[in-house]
Amino acid sequence: MSQKASPLAPTHAPKLPALAGVRLAIRECNIRYRGRPDVMLMELSPGSTIAGVLTKSLAPSAAVDLCRKHLKGGKARAILVNAGNANAFTGKLGKQAAELSVDAAAKTLGCKKGEIFVASTGVIGEPLPAEKITANLGALKDSLKADAWADAAAAIMTTDTFPKLATRTATIGGTAVTLNGICKGSGMIAPDMATMLAFVATDAKLPADILRTLLQKSADKSFNCITVDGDTSTSDTLLLAATGEAKNPKPKSAGDPILKEFRAALDSLLTDLAVQVVMDGEGAEKLVTIDITGAASAAAARRIGLSIANSPLVKTAIAGEDANWGRIVMAVGKAGEKAERDKLAIKIGGVLIAAKGQRVADYDEAPVAKHIRSRDIKIEVDVGVGTGKARVWTCDLTHRYIEINADYRS
Amino acid sequence: MSQKASPLAPTHAPKLPALAGVRLAIRECNIRYRGRPDVMLMELSPGSTIAGVLTKSLAPSAAVDLCRKHLKGGKARAILVNAGNANAFTGKLGKQAAELSVDAAAKTLGCKKGEIFVASTGVIGEPLPAEKITANLGALKDSLKADAWADAAAAIMTTDTFPKLATRTATIGGTAVTLNGICKGSGMIAPDMATMLAFVATDAKLPADILRTLLQKSADKSFNCITVDGDTSTSDTLLLAATGEAKNPKPKSAGDPILKEFRAALDSLLTDLAVQVVMDGEGAEKLVTIDITGAASAAAARRIGLSIANSPLVKTAIAGEDANWGRIVMAVGKAGEKAERDKLAIKIGGVLIAAKGQRVADYDEAPVAKHIRSRDIKIEVDVGVGTGKARVWTCDLTHRYIEINADYRS
Repeated sequence: MSQKASPLAPTHAPKLPALAGVRLAIRECNIRYRGRPDVMLMELSPGSTIAGVLTKSLAPSAAVDLCRKHLKGGKARAILVNAGNANAFTGKLGKQAAELSVDAAAKTLGCKKGEIFVASTGVIGEPLPAEKITANLGALKDSLKADAWADAAAAIMTTDTFPKLATRTATIGGTAVTLNGICKGSGMIAPDMATMLAFVATDAKLPADILRTLLQKSADKSFNCITVDGDTSTSDTLLLAATGEAKNPKPKSAGDPILKEFRAALDSLLTDLAVQVVMDGEGAEKLVTIDITGAASAAAARRIGLSIANSPLVKTAIAGEDANWGRIVMAVGKAGEKAERDKLAIKIGGVLIAAKGQRVADYDEAPVAKHIRSRDIKIEVDVGVGTGKARVWTCDLTHRYIEINADYRS
Repeated sequence: MSQKASPLAPTHAPKLPALAGVRLAIRECNIRYRGRPDVMLMELSPGSTIAGVLTKSLAPSAAVDLCRKHLKGGKARAILVNAGNANAFTGKLGKQAAELSVDAAAKTLGCKKGEIFVASTGVIGEPLPAEKITANLGALKDSLKADAWADAAAAIMTTDTFPKLATRTATIGGTAVTLNGICKGSGMIAPDMATMLAFVATDAKLPADILRTLLQKSADKSFNCITVDGDTSTSDTLLLAATGEAKNPKPKSAGDPILKEFRAALDSLLTDLAVQVVMDGEGAEKLVTIDITGAASAAAARRIGLSIANSPLVKTAIAGEDANWGRIVMAVGKAGEKAERDKLAIKIGGVLIAAKGQRVADYDEAPVAKHIRSRDIKIEVDVGVGTGKARVWTCDLTHRYIEINADYRS
């Protein structure tokens, strides 16, 4: 597959600072790829807490099964990730392989098994050769260092055309904290290759239950608001670890006012990473931002937004630079959420096209046609029934998507 | 747009016999198209009953609104259809246009307004010039004839590449009855053009309430089991009218044993028409039949089947002739229905590929690779939790789909 960067790729990747309590290592383990690092180990200092959001797929990978189990403990000492093999739909062998990796990592780092988190991304249906990972754990441990975030982001890539990184700072009760995140994802499942994975760490001190609430709320506004092709991987994994090294004052709850800045920083960081995934969407030529307002609830607004974002007809229209607002009406109508046809309003590029159930009388297509030829497309829809709102992101559906996904083997 | 017939088109259209109580007329009304008939009038004899299944879109067309209202009466004297303009999202003007057509047709045929049914297919967002239809109603009435089914099927086409017709016979309590049906549809919404429309008539004598039950059950096994791109039109309309001219014995209920043959004939006819829509799916090169077994219920089986059928990654894999069964696992997992990963079994072209949560040990890809190069693809999935089953149909997702939908204006 081509590794030419997406036309939507950021011009430069941000430089992530070292984060107290986090060390990283990468290594060429030759699981599937040759001549590139394909395993990443993130070590977390003792006492680190963790929360996660995992795929809702009912056919999850062996790694997802283990993460779900270990997240109950809320404690973490390491995240071990491989690229090239998703270890999904691999039955007992897959389960054994994931457990073998966890056991070996716990032994190498001298911690409990329940403090090790694993993630695998790549081919579905082929058992993971865990011994290729476990044989390298000693070397990985020996090469751990604080300033390897860029290396880590590159090592977890599969069909991604650029590494995805983001960093933010905030204060909690006057104490400065940092958040660093890395991510991979291109299609929900790329050609034979799977998954969106994101690993975020902070030096903030936060109990696991607070971390869980913060992460779920933030994921609902970021990773749960993006779509490339509407397909959900067997392996989607988002983990947020907190090392506590910043020794900030302890918040009483996730809603504690002292967490205001942290919540905003987490939202911003996760949204940044999520939008990078869309920018690297298979075949993407345009980033599409869809704002829904006037829905019955925020959840309804998100579902309407995703109905538009997942519509092949909307996405091909945008690829064809055609301001086909009738398809947006169709997608709102099929979302199954409350909407008032005769109050619906649609804007593209800020220009009002339709309102009160029909095209506006003095609609001038020229500025809309100009907007839709740009890289950055804005769609706004007010469904006219309430105050619920949401923002979702997608990309266009191009010939290149078909090439990547249909012509891969030919 | 190209009118080259789909490679999946039937080699010849069936010849539909005249049906007692039904007369048809077509006419060039120049609503959008030039040089082809674009309006169809189906006249039904006095006393005809009717049932319908309409789009679930919450932004339905003006015609759908009117059909929903008139279906409550259960009586019909005519179905009036235009191609080229969907009269959807056209506000008050659209409502007025639909009502104008109904009023004029009722006057022309000398019946009640509530006995006239209308359907419009074509561009969304442009008010329907109803006067172009009403001005031609006299001429349409004057040219009504019994043997114009093929003409009628052609007049309702938009981006369809072939007319869609089907006929069946059955006996009800010893009396022979006939069912004729015509249909149009290509994408759920074709380029700027909308909708799946199907009109079925029978000379059987059946009360409207029985007709409703029969139609809904049959639609759930046919039109509600197909997808081209997962997009739902603002105008989808399926109507079933019964003229009663065959004067068969009256059934007590929809489940009456004397309707056994009729039910089977209706199922068969609707499935035939529905599969023809998939065969004319935009860009379709392959017809894909997906059988789901072992689901928690028939509805669950259908949802799992549609999750596979709507997955862009499954559809592009088939276009690329790649037996990528991992994507089928993904689509089952994302359907949100009960499934046992470790009991899941997948066959392509009758060959068992995966069972008990993993690829079978002796999997031979050669016969599967051969099958997937054919026009007619069979996928079977047993989800291992119950006895619910369903069959759904879709087509592959090809470059031609993108061309049709993205490159239309360029």
